[in-house]
Amino acid sequence: MSNTLIDRLAAIVGASQVSADPDVLEGRSLDHTGRYRGRASALVRPGTTEEVAGVLRECREAGVHVTVQGGRTSLVAGAVPEYDDVLLSTERLTEVGAVDAVDRRVRVGAGVTLAAVQRAAAKAGLVFGVDLAARDSATVGGMASTNAGGLRTVRYGNMGEQIIGLEVVLPDGSIVHRHSEVRRDNTGYDLAALFVGAEGTLGVITALDLRLHPTPPHRVTAVCGFDDLDDLVAAGREFRDMAAIAALELIDSRASALTAAHLGVAAPVAGAWQLLIELAADTDPTEQLADALENVALSDEPAVGVDAVAQQRLWQVRESLAEILGLYGPPLKFDVSLPLSAISSFADESRELVAAHAPDAIPVLFGHIGEGNLHLNVLRCQLEGAREAELYGAMMALIARCGGNVSSEHGVGTRKRDYVGMSRTEADIAAMRTVKAAFDPAGYLNGAVLFD
Amino acid sequence: MSNTLIDRLAAIVGASQVSADPDVLEGRSLDHTGRYRGRASALVRPGTTEEVAGVLRECREAGVHVTVQGGRTSLVAGAVPEYDDVLLSTERLTEVGAVDAVDRRVRVGAGVTLAAVQRAAAKAGLVFGVDLAARDSATVGGMASTNAGGLRTVRYGNMGEQIIGLEVVLPDGSIVHRHSEVRRDNTGYDLAALFVGAEGTLGVITALDLRLHPTPPHRVTAVCGFDDLDDLVAAGREFRDMAAIAALELIDSRASALTAAHLGVAAPVAGAWQLLIELAADTDPTEQLADALENVALSDEPAVGVDAVAQQRLWQVRESLAEILGLYGPPLKFDVSLPLSAISSFADESRELVAAHAPDAIPVLFGHIGEGNLHLNVLRCQLEGAREAELYGAMMALIARCGGNVSSEHGVGTRKRDYVGMSRTEADIAAMRTVKAAFDPAGYLNGAVLFD
Repeated sequence: MSNTLIDRLAAIVGASQVSADPDVLEGRSLDHTGRYRGRASALVRPGTTEEVAGVLRECREAGVHVTVQGGRTSLVAGAVPEYDDVLLSTERLTEVGAVDAVDRRVRVGAGVTLAAVQRAAAKAGLVFGVDLAARDSATVGGMASTNAGGLRTVRYGNMGEQIIGLEVVLPDGSIVHRHSEVRRDNTGYDLAALFVGAEGTLGVITALDLRLHPTPPHRVTAVCGFDDLDDLVAAGREFRDMAAIAALELIDSRASALTAAHLGVAAPVAGAWQLLIELAADTDPTEQLADALENVALSDEPAVGVDAVAQQRLWQVRESLAEILGLYGPPLKFDVSLPLSAISSFADESRELVAAHAPDAIPVLFGHIGEGNLHLNVLRCQLEGAREAELYGAMMALIARCGGNVSSEHGVGTRKRDYVGMSRTEADIAAMRTVKAAFDPAGYLNGAVLFD
Repeated sequence: MSNTLIDRLAAIVGASQVSADPDVLEGRSLDHTGRYRGRASALVRPGTTEEVAGVLRECREAGVHVTVQGGRTSLVAGAVPEYDDVLLSTERLTEVGAVDAVDRRVRVGAGVTLAAVQRAAAKAGLVFGVDLAARDSATVGGMASTNAGGLRTVRYGNMGEQIIGLEVVLPDGSIVHRHSEVRRDNTGYDLAALFVGAEGTLGVITALDLRLHPTPPHRVTAVCGFDDLDDLVAAGREFRDMAAIAALELIDSRASALTAAHLGVAAPVAGAWQLLIELAADTDPTEQLADALENVALSDEPAVGVDAVAQQRLWQVRESLAEILGLYGPPLKFDVSLPLSAISSFADESRELVAAHAPDAIPVLFGHIGEGNLHLNVLRCQLEGAREAELYGAMMALIARCGGNVSSEHGVGTRKRDYVGMSRTEADIAAMRTVKAAFDPAGYLNGAVLFD
C-alpha cells in the first residue's frame, strides 16, 4: 500500500489508529476458526462516524478494497480480507447511550459487544432479545450486518427485529440514518432493513437504536429426551408458537455426551435426541410446561429446573457445546435452515454423506429447532482442499434438495458465496447485484463477501 | 396512446382485459375521496405474474408511464396517474391458496382483498394480523406496498410483519421471489423488505405468503374516558406493551359524539378523550384489565364488554367513524406518527392551526395510540388550492417540530411527496433515489409516487 494513503488515513483517524505492522495484519487476516486466511495492507480504527466516512472516501478514491471487521466471530469467514484490503475496525465505536426504560430502547455504537448491551439492559431491569455464545466478542454492528440469530430467536426474533434505528456510512461516504422516536414510519424505503443482513457490502453500520424487552419474572427450564427425532420435531412444533416460549434447542445425544463427559457431569436425560425447552412469563409457566409435555412422546422423565441454579445446570451442556467440540480441532461447520418436515431426513442423510466422504469424522447436530435452524458440526474431519470442497458442495446440494436454505444465521460471508445460487434464483441474485452496484459501483467494500 | 401499444398489451392479456374507454379511465383516475384526479391512457388487467411482466416490458419499451392499482383505497392519492399512464390493475390476481394450519400461513395473489384473507384465516380457526376499515376493498398487494397498519398493529405489527414471502415483478420485467418454507433465511439482501412500503415504485408485487395467528380464545373490551389527554397517553404507554394487548384506539369525544349521534346510540363514557382497549389471551384477561385500569386516571367508570355483543357495541363508534365523518364531505386528512411525549401538544397546536386557517372547519382526532399514530381529520374544510396547501404545509411543519413523521400508515403517495424532506435527510433521500434509479432508471413505474 502506498504511504500516501496511510498518511491520508492517519490524517483522518490519527497516526496511532493506523497500523501496517505485519504481525498485527497477519493476526487480523486469520479467521478465529483458524481455517481461513486472507491478506491485508493496513488496519484503521476510526473513532467516529465521520471518521468512518472519511476512511471510506479515501479508500474508494485510491481504488483500495476495504473489509469491515467487528468482533471477528464470523463462522463463514465474513471478515477475512482477500484483496490485500484496508481493514476497517469498528472497535472504537463503543458508546453505550442511556437506556430509555420507558420506551425500552438504547442507542449504541456498532463496536459495542453483545455482552455490553446485555449488561446495560440488565441494569435497567430489561433484557436484550438476542443471545449467542460469542456474546463477549461479537459486536452489534456485525450482528446487525449478519442479522444474527441465536438462542432467543424463537421468542424475540433475529437481530433485525431488535433494530429500531440505524446509522450507516455508504460506500460513497455519505451518512444515512433512520433514528426515529416514532414507532411507525412509512416515509419511503425501509433502507435500514436493506442494510440488516447485507454483511457490510452496502455500507458500514456505525450506530444502532436497539429495542429492549421487559424481563419475564417467571421461568422454567426442561431437558427432554426422545428416541425418535420425528417426535422431537413434533414437540418443537407444539412449543415454538407458545407466547411463553423462551428457548427451544435441539442437541443430539452424541454432542451432549461428549460435552457432559468433558464437564464431568451426567447427561440430564437418556434418549438419542435432547430438547431443551424454556418458558418465561408473567405468571409461573411450570404447569403450562407440564400440560404441554403430556402430549409429547418422551423417552423418559424430563429434567425440569424451576430455580436459577437448576436452570443453569440444564443450560450448561448447551452453553459449553461449541467450546468443547472445538477441542477436537476446528470443526467443519454447516449452518442451515430447513422446513421442520425435512429435519429428520436431513439428519439421516447428512450423517450418511459424512460417513461416505470422511469415515473417521464425527458429525454432531444441534441448533434452534423453532426456526428449523440446525448446526451440523463435523468433528475430526481430516479432509482438505478439493476433498473438503467435495463434501461441502454435496452437503449444500442435500440442503437444497431438502427445501432448506444453505445459509441461516451465520450468513454467506466468503465461505458460502459460491452456493447462494442454491437458495436464490438467477433473477434474485441479479436484483441483489443491482443493489450492490447502485451503492458500490467499484465493488470495493467487503468485495469478497456474498457475491462470487 | 398508440394503437400499437394497445394491441401489444391485448396480445399479452387478451383483448377483453385492455380498455381505453374514456368513462372507465375517468373513473379509475379519480381517487376515492374525490379530491385528487389524474389522467390515464389505458387500463390493463393481467391475470398472471407472467402477464404482469409482459405488460411492464411493453410499457417500458414504449416509454409509457405505468401506475399500479389495487383496491384504490389510498388516502394519499397513491394510485392516481399523473402522466397519462397505463393503469395496471391487480384485480385479477385473486388466487387464495390452501391455508397451512400447522405452519399458519397462506399464499395469496396481490389482488386478494383483506376481507378475503380474513375469511380464509377464520375458516381455518386462525386470524390475520392486520385489520382496517377498508377491508372489503383494500388488496394485500397494496397493503404490502404501503406497509399498512390499522387496528391490530399494537399486537401483531404492520403488514410487513405478516409477510413471509413475496413475488415481485421488477421494472425490467424480471420476476424475483422470496417464497420460502424456512423461517430463518439470511442468504443475501432482504429484498422483500425493500419492496414492502416502496409504494410500487420498485416493482409490482404479484403474490404473497402471509403469516396467520392463532385466535385468542378470551377477549375483553373497554372504552375509558379521560379529561386530560396526558392521562390517556400515560394509560396508552402502560397498555401498549402488554402481551395481551389487542387494540388501543384513541378517539376524541367530538368525533365520538358526532358518530354516536348519527348512529342513534349513547356515548359509552364521558370525558374529553376516549380510549378503546382490547385484551385477548389464552386465559380470561378481564381481571388483568381491571388491575391495570386501577393505575389510570379515568374521568368516570369504564364501559367494559365481556361478551361478543357488548364488545361489538363498544367497537361500533370506532368502526363507523371514517364513514360517518365522511358525510361532512371529504375531510382533509393528516396521518402522522408522533412520539407519545408530543401527542398532547400536537393535539393543542394542530387545533389552533386549523382555527387560524379555517375557522369554520371541525378538526377531529383519532388513531392508534400504541404506535403514536394519529389521524387528524379536518371536517368541513372549505379551503382550496393555495390556501389548502398553506394549511397542509403548516401542519407538516408542526409535525416535524414535534419530532414526528409526516407520513405514517398511509404512506407518501403523490400527496405527500413534497414533504418527505421533513422526515428524511438529504442523504437518506439520495440513497432512496439511488435504489429507485437502480431498479427503474427510466422512472416509468409509479413515477409520480414518493419522489417530487
